[in-house]
Amino acid sequence: MKESILKHQSGEPLEICIKGQKIGRSHFTMIAGPCTIENYEDLHTVAVELKKMGIHFFRGGAYKMRTSPYNFQGLGKTGLEYIKKVADETGMISVSEVVSVEDVEMIKEYVDILQVGTRNMSNYRLLLKLGKVKNPVIIKRGFSSTIEEWLLAAEHVIEAGNPNVILCERGIRTYETYTRYTLDISAVPAIKELSNLPIIVDPSHSSGRREMIKSLSWAAVAAGADGLLIETHFSPDNTVCDSKQTIDLEILKDIIKGNNKLLNLWNKN
Amino acid sequence: MKESILKHQSGEPLEICIKGQKIGRSHFTMIAGPCTIENYEDLHTVAVELKKMGIHFFRGGAYKMRTSPYNFQGLGKTGLEYIKKVADETGMISVSEVVSVEDVEMIKEYVDILQVGTRNMSNYRLLLKLGKVKNPVIIKRGFSSTIEEWLLAAEHVIEAGNPNVILCERGIRTYETYTRYTLDISAVPAIKELSNLPIIVDPSHSSGRREMIKSLSWAAVAAGADGLLIETHFSPDNTVCDSKQTIDLEILKDIIKGNNKLLNLWNKN
Amino acid sequence: MKESILKHQSGEPLEICIKGQKIGRSHFTMIAGPCTIENYEDLHTVAVELKKMGIHFFRGGAYKMRTSPYNFQGLGKTGLEYIKKVADETGMISVSEVVSVEDVEMIKEYVDILQVGTRNMSNYRLLLKLGKVKNPVIIKRGFSSTIEEWLLAAEHVIEAGNPNVILCERGIRTYETYTRYTLDISAVPAIKELSNLPIIVDPSHSSGRREMIKSLSWAAVAAGADGLLIETHFSPDNTVCDSKQTIDLEILKDIIKGNNKLLNLWNKN
Amino acid sequence: MKESILKHQSGEPLEICIKGQKIGRSHFTMIAGPCTIENYEDLHTVAVELKKMGIHFFRGGAYKMRTSPYNFQGLGKTGLEYIKKVADETGMISVSEVVSVEDVEMIKEYVDILQVGTRNMSNYRLLLKLGKVKNPVIIKRGFSSTIEEWLLAAEHVIEAGNPNVILCERGIRTYETYTRYTLDISAVPAIKELSNLPIIVDPSHSSGRREMIKSLSWAAVAAGADGLLIETHFSPDNTVCDSKQTIDLEILKDIIKGNNKLLNLWNKN
Repeated sequence: MKESILKHQSGEPLEICIKGQKIGRSHFTMIAGPCTIENYEDLHTVAVELKKMGIHFFRGGAYKMRTSPYNFQGLGKTGLEYIKKVADETGMISVSEVVSVEDVEMIKEYVDILQVGTRNMSNYRLLLKLGKVKNPVIIKRGFSSTIEEWLLAAEHVIEAGNPNVILCERGIRTYETYTRYTLDISAVPAIKELSNLPIIVDPSHSSGRREMIKSLSWAAVAAGADGLLIETHFSPDNTVCDSKQTIDLEILKDIIKGNNKLLNLWNKN
Repeated sequence: MKESILKHQSGEPLEICIKGQKIGRSHFTMIAGPCTIENYEDLHTVAVELKKMGIHFFRGGAYKMRTSPYNFQGLGKTGLEYIKKVADETGMISVSEVVSVEDVEMIKEYVDILQVGTRNMSNYRLLLKLGKVKNPVIIKRGFSSTIEEWLLAAEHVIEAGNPNVILCERGIRTYETYTRYTLDISAVPAIKELSNLPIIVDPSHSSGRREMIKSLSWAAVAAGADGLLIETHFSPDNTVCDSKQTIDLEILKDIIKGNNKLLNLWNKN
Repeated sequence: MKESILKHQSGEPLEICIKGQKIGRSHFTMIAGPCTIENYEDLHTVAVELKKMGIHFFRGGAYKMRTSPYNFQGLGKTGLEYIKKVADETGMISVSEVVSVEDVEMIKEYVDILQVGTRNMSNYRLLLKLGKVKNPVIIKRGFSSTIEEWLLAAEHVIEAGNPNVILCERGIRTYETYTRYTLDISAVPAIKELSNLPIIVDPSHSSGRREMIKSLSWAAVAAGADGLLIETHFSPDNTVCDSKQTIDLEILKDIIKGNNKLLNLWNKN
Repeated sequence: MKESILKHQSGEPLEICIKGQKIGRSHFTMIAGPCTIENYEDLHTVAVELKKMGIHFFRGGAYKMRTSPYNFQGLGKTGLEYIKKVADETGMISVSEVVSVEDVEMIKEYVDILQVGTRNMSNYRLLLKLGKVKNPVIIKRGFSSTIEEWLLAAEHVIEAGNPNVILCERGIRTYETYTRYTLDISAVPAIKELSNLPIIVDPSHSSGRREMIKSLSWAAVAAGADGLLIETHFSPDNTVCDSKQTIDLEILKDIIKGNNKLLNLWNKN
C-alpha cells in the first residue's frame, strides 16, 4: 500500500474525547449491549448492568440492515428515543448504526457515536455526510474489503471534515464456514502500522458463535486492539436477533477480568 | 437455498419491454458504452457507432463510486443531461448507475434503466426506493455476495413494488489476483434455475483486462446469459477511467459476430 | 506475473500426439468417463458408448484421494488392469490419476495419460517424478492455487524432462457455497496468454451439480478451452462417488452437438 | 460439522510426552528456529540461544517445498544430520518437515517431531505413512482447508496407528494481500471445541511480516493456543529464505515475556 494515499492518518495517535471518556491508542474502550433494541426496559436493564461493571459505552440497534425483506427491520425512531433516554439516565455513551444518508441529521441528535455497518463501508455518500457531523464515527470493515479500502473509507469521512473516526474489524468473508466470518486479527497490527486511528474489534459478528467470544476478545486485546464491541444481553437466548452470538453478563465479567491482565502488554488503561 | 425465501421469482420467465425492446430469457440484450461520461461529444459518438452495429442499449456513468476520495467522481447532473440528450437523439435506451437513495427521484427522469452498483447491492434503503419507480433496475452482484443474498436484494425491489429487475454478474472477489475479480460463470445457470429474472454478464469489471473480454463474453453467452454489459469506447486508451478493461469498437464487432453463432444454443434472438 | 519465471512455456503452442490423436490449441479434446472405476463391465460399457459418439479419450479413477479415512479409496491395481484392458479393446486413450510418487512407475504402464489431482498440484516430488516418464500429464489446478503457482507446477514437470503437460481448470475455492467450487473461466484466456500448454476444463468438479454441466461446458469451449474433462456414466444415480455431478450419455450428446457450433469460434477441430 | 466423523479425537485432552517435555492443553510449547538450515554453525548458534531462553524445541527445514523449480530446495540429508547433531548436543527436541512419503523412514531417525506442511495436508499417502511411525506429527492446516478437512487429515494419521498428532494453524488464503495469508485465530477455540489434539499457531507464515509476529503470537496465546511455532534467527536479514517474516532473538525474548502474563488465562505452564 502506498501510504501516501492517506493524507490524514499519520502522526500522533488520534485521541477522541467524549463525555469525559477517551478513545485511542493509550486507552481501552469496551462497548457492549444488545444487537437490536426490542423495548425500553431491556435496554435500560442491560445498560445499568454494564455500568456496574465499569463499562461506559453501550450499543443497541434501532435501524437494521437485513438481507431478507421479510425480516425484522428494527424499531426505528422509537429505538433512538430509548437510546437517548438510557444514555441520559445512566450517563453512558451510546453507539448505534446509521444505515442511510437521509437519517444522519436525525440520528446524530439521539446517539453519541454513529456506526457505519459492514455493508455500508463503501457507501461513499453516507461517509461524506458523516464527515459533516460532530459525532465520532465507527467504521466497520466491509466484510470483503481490503485494509487499504477500509482506510480509504475513513479518509472519505476525515477529508469531508470529521476527524473522529474509529475503525472496527468485524471479520471477513472466506471459504471457511465453521465461523460466520473469519476474524482478521492481523488487521489490528496492520492498522496500527498504517494509521493513527483507534482500532477496535467485534468478536460477535466475526464468529457468530457465543462460545468463542472470550477467546477472540482476549486475542484482540493481546494483539493490541484499542477496544472491543461485544453483543451482550442479560438473557441472550430470548433475543430476536443474533442470539447465537450474544453473550450473557457473566461471560462479559470473565472477559473483563482477563482483559485487565492483558492491557499492560500495550500500556493501556 | 430454500427457494421458499423468494416470493416473487418463480413461474414464467420475466420479460421486460422498454421502448420496443424486450429483455428476458428469449432475447439477447447487448449494452455497451464508456465507463464514465467525459463530455457530450464522445458519448454521442460512441452511441451512434453502437447503433450502427444494431445495438439498442448504451451505458455511461454520471455518478461514480470511488474508493479514494481523491479520484474523479463523475460529471453528476451534467452527465445525466448528456445521457438524456443522446438517448433522445438516437432513440436508444440508456443505462446508468444511481449511487444513493436521494438521487433516485431525479435520475429516473433522465435515464431509462437504473443500475445498482456492486458496492450498493446491500444498500437496502436504495433498493426500497427503486421499488417505488417504474424504470427497470439492473442489480449488479455484490462482489462478495452469495447468489442467495443477490436474489434477496432483487426481492427487496420487487416486494417494494417494481417487478422489472435484471441481475448482472460482474465477478466476485477471490484470492486470485491475475484478474481484478473472478467471473462466476456458474452464476448464470444458477440464476436461471432459481429465479425468473433476466441474468446478464459484465466481463469488463470481472476481469479488468481488455484482452479477455471476447473470451468471457462468448463464455457468458454460451452459458446461457440473457445479455452482456461491456465497457466500450472508440479510443479506450484515452479514457479517464477503467481504460485497461475497455474495448474498442472493432473488438465489439468481433464479439457480436461470434454471439450470432451462439444465440441459437439457447433459442435466443 | 513475470513471464520470465517460465523457461519452457513460450513459443509455438504445444501439440501432443498420442495414439494418433492430437491435443493442443488447434484441436478439441473430449475426455469422459466415470469418477471411480467400480468394475470392469461398467467401465467397458461407458467406454464403448463414448467411442460411438466419436470420443477418443476415457477417464476412470483407480486410486482416490479421499478427505475422510472412512471413505472408499478406489480399486487400486485391479482398477488399473481394467483401464488397460478397456483401452486395448477399444483402441481408446485412457486417463487416470496418480496419487503418490511411489505409484508412478507402475501406473505409467497401465494408463496413457497420467493426471495430477487438485490436492497434489503442489506435491513437487510427484511432479519431478512425472518429469521422468514419457506419458503426457494432466495437471489439475490446485483449488486454491494462483495461475502463477499452477504454471510453476507445470514448469516442475517440464524442467524435469517431460514436455507433454496439459493444464486443467477445475474450479477454485471461494466463499460461494451454491456450487462446490467456483469455475474460474478467466483462467482459460489467461493460460492461453501466458503459456503454450493446452488448457482443458473440468465442469464436473467445479460445480458439483449435474444440471450445470451443459452450460459450463459450452462456456469453456466458447472461452477457447482446448478440451473438456467430464464425469459421465450410463447411470449416474447408481454410482458410488460424485453421482450428483455425473451426467448421463444423453446430456453428453447434447453437449457435443453444441460444441460443434462453437469450435469454429477458435478455429479448432 | 458432524463430530461423529471423528472416531479418535474426543475425550480427555491428548498429552504428548517427548524427552521429558509435555505438549497438550495444560502446557505451552514454544518452537523456534530458522526457516531453512543453511549450515551447521548457524543452526547450532540459534539452538543454543533458544535454550538459554528456556526453549526446549527448535525447528529447521532440510527439505523445502518450493513453488518454483528454480528456487533453493534445502540441504536434504546433510540438513538432517545437522539437526540430529544439534539435538544431541543441546538435549533439545527437533522439529522438521517431511515432504514426501518415501523420505519418512529415513527422516524419522534424525528428527524428533515430523511436520506435514500446508501443501501436504491432503497428501493422504504421506499421512498414512506417518500413522506407522512413533514420532509425534505436526499437521499444518492446508492454506485453503476447512477446519473439518484438517481434523480429517489428523484422523488419517491416528486411524493408521499414530495417536500423537499436533495441529498447527498457519494462516489461510483470502482476498487480503497486505498479509501473506490470513491467520484464522478462530481456529484455536474451534479446535479446542471439536478435538482433543494440541493446537499451536505459526504467526510467521500467516503474516509474512516480521513486525506483526509479536502481536499475533500474543493473540494466539490469549486465544488459548497450546504453543507457538516461530521462525527465528540471530540475523534474519542474512537468511536465504523467508527473511521478511523471521524475527531476531530480541523480539523472541519480548514475546516470551508477554506470554508469561498470558498463560495463566488458560491455566497453562
